[in-house]
Amino acid sequence: MQVGLIGLGKMGLNIGKNLIDHEHQVVAYDLNAEAVQEMEKYGAKGTNKLNELFESLEKPRVLWVMVPHSAVDSVIGEITPLLEQGDIVIDAGNSHYKESIRRYHQLREIGVSFMDAGTSGGMEGARNGANYMVGGDQEAWAITEPIFRDTAVEKGYIFTGKAGGGHFLKMVHNGIEYGMMASIGEGFEILEKSEFDYDYEKVASVWNNGSVIRSWLMELTEHAFSQDAKLDSIQGIMHSSGEGKWTLETALDLQTATPVIAMSLLSRYRSTEQDTFTGKVVAALRNEFGGHAVDKK
Amino acid sequence: MQVGLIGLGKMGLNIGKNLIDHEHQVVAYDLNAEAVQEMEKYGAKGTNKLNELFESLEKPRVLWVMVPHSAVDSVIGEITPLLEQGDIVIDAGNSHYKESIRRYHQLREIGVSFMDAGTSGGMEGARNGANYMVGGDQEAWAITEPIFRDTAVEKGYIFTGKAGGGHFLKMVHNGIEYGMMASIGEGFEILEKSEFDYDYEKVASVWNNGSVIRSWLMELTEHAFSQDAKLDSIQGIMHSSGEGKWTLETALDLQTATPVIAMSLLSRYRSTEQDTFTGKVVAALRNEFGGHAVDKK
Repeated sequence: MQVGLIGLGKMGLNIGKNLIDHEHQVVAYDLNAEAVQEMEKYGAKGTNKLNELFESLEKPRVLWVMVPHSAVDSVIGEITPLLEQGDIVIDAGNSHYKESIRRYHQLREIGVSFMDAGTSGGMEGARNGANYMVGGDQEAWAITEPIFRDTAVEKGYIFTGKAGGGHFLKMVHNGIEYGMMASIGEGFEILEKSEFDYDYEKVASVWNNGSVIRSWLMELTEHAFSQDAKLDSIQGIMHSSGEGKWTLETALDLQTATPVIAMSLLSRYRSTEQDTFTGKVVAALRNEFGGHAVDKK
Repeated sequence: MQVGLIGLGKMGLNIGKNLIDHEHQVVAYDLNAEAVQEMEKYGAKGTNKLNELFESLEKPRVLWVMVPHSAVDSVIGEITPLLEQGDIVIDAGNSHYKESIRRYHQLREIGVSFMDAGTSGGMEGARNGANYMVGGDQEAWAITEPIFRDTAVEKGYIFTGKAGGGHFLKMVHNGIEYGMMASIGEGFEILEKSEFDYDYEKVASVWNNGSVIRSWLMELTEHAFSQDAKLDSIQGIMHSSGEGKWTLETALDLQTATPVIAMSLLSRYRSTEQDTFTGKVVAALRNEFGGHAVDKK
């Protein structure tokens, strides 16, 4: 089928090529001329004009938006004057599910169906077989399922049947990911501080073959250690791009005890600081009441 | 080669059959006549007398001990009078690595080589392809590697090269497992408390196909939900058998910050209590200073 692809960053380019591999027609839009050219070379029709994009698409149009979550409202604002009743807008990025519910109702008012599609599997997945968690209307799903099915790995997509349900599921997926990654990290930290001298690549390898903790994340761990045996070339600063925070905020709103996911997020925040004000206050207090030495600057 | 198998519980029986499948000769010892019979039917020589076991084995003897960690010292005590210089004792259970180091030195005094082999992969792994993390002497490894190699999945074993290093690695593996399992549990708890109505078996399935958190534990999650869609038939009481506690105790000894593994263990303890004294104290205090209502018994 025909898909209008808005946003040709790394994820967008990979999804676009994946769509073309499966014999879908892609009309690709971006302001970045280089990215548009790359898609054209791969067989897409490219444009840097939104009205051209809209004119090229048969109705009802299917628009696959693949932009950072902070840009979704601005994209929707720009395309709203061009949208017509029956069109379908898919946000396949990492938007907050509450924003997706709001956008669903906003577009519904002009007869446009909005779908929230959480996409997992990284760039490699986007290129060769992604993983989708999709919320929205059943009618829109009936039209769009083929493009999700064809670009996903086998059994790698789910329709959750309610606006926001796709991005909610993707958010929780990422929360679980935070906890799993922190567990793996902490485990290797204990090994590193221990009296034993392990080869971490081999450890990760043996854990990937028959152990209870075998997983794609452990495979990535193995790969990372194969490139840098003790990860000497990088710092242990763990940035985060929002979904772990959203998961914890949601857990708090739902008054749900999620200590492991919470600690995995807070550990990331701690990792971004060389020193902490908490530490200064506690050190000062130990000194105040017990005369314990402080480490001076 | 010839292996003396001590302990025919579920793990011992499965390892025994796995050894025989790979054309090793098993002499199996247990006091449980039924288990001995089962091994004999499968092609082992069975006995309920330790001296018979020892007489049946060529020297140097290889003794594979597969008993609960609380029984290891008693088994070693019983076999010590029968052991001869050059014999090899493998503890393939979940012993504490410090106990393994102690046992290594204890047996070394009488010229016996002790190996600590952490075994992962569950009963199915023990039967069809286990995962081993093995510490001990290089000389003993040179003799015993074939039995580990043959009963493990491909690439599913590692020799760590120092007494205690096998059980230490298995302990940390289990600590990581605690954190991963807690993350998965907490994620599904957020789904369950949310406004969305997910089919958890389908969610686990989609997460197993192309997502970042695909893992054997998520496959087990999928299987559990396939048997009981909302796990209505079981209580959320998370028992623990010691390795998570050992991991945290080790992290504390090493002054290593492992908040995620710590919380995964503490959550298990909380889950075993219907009510908590912490809760009573905090509720009483809120009432004391703020007049906040308490829930009366």
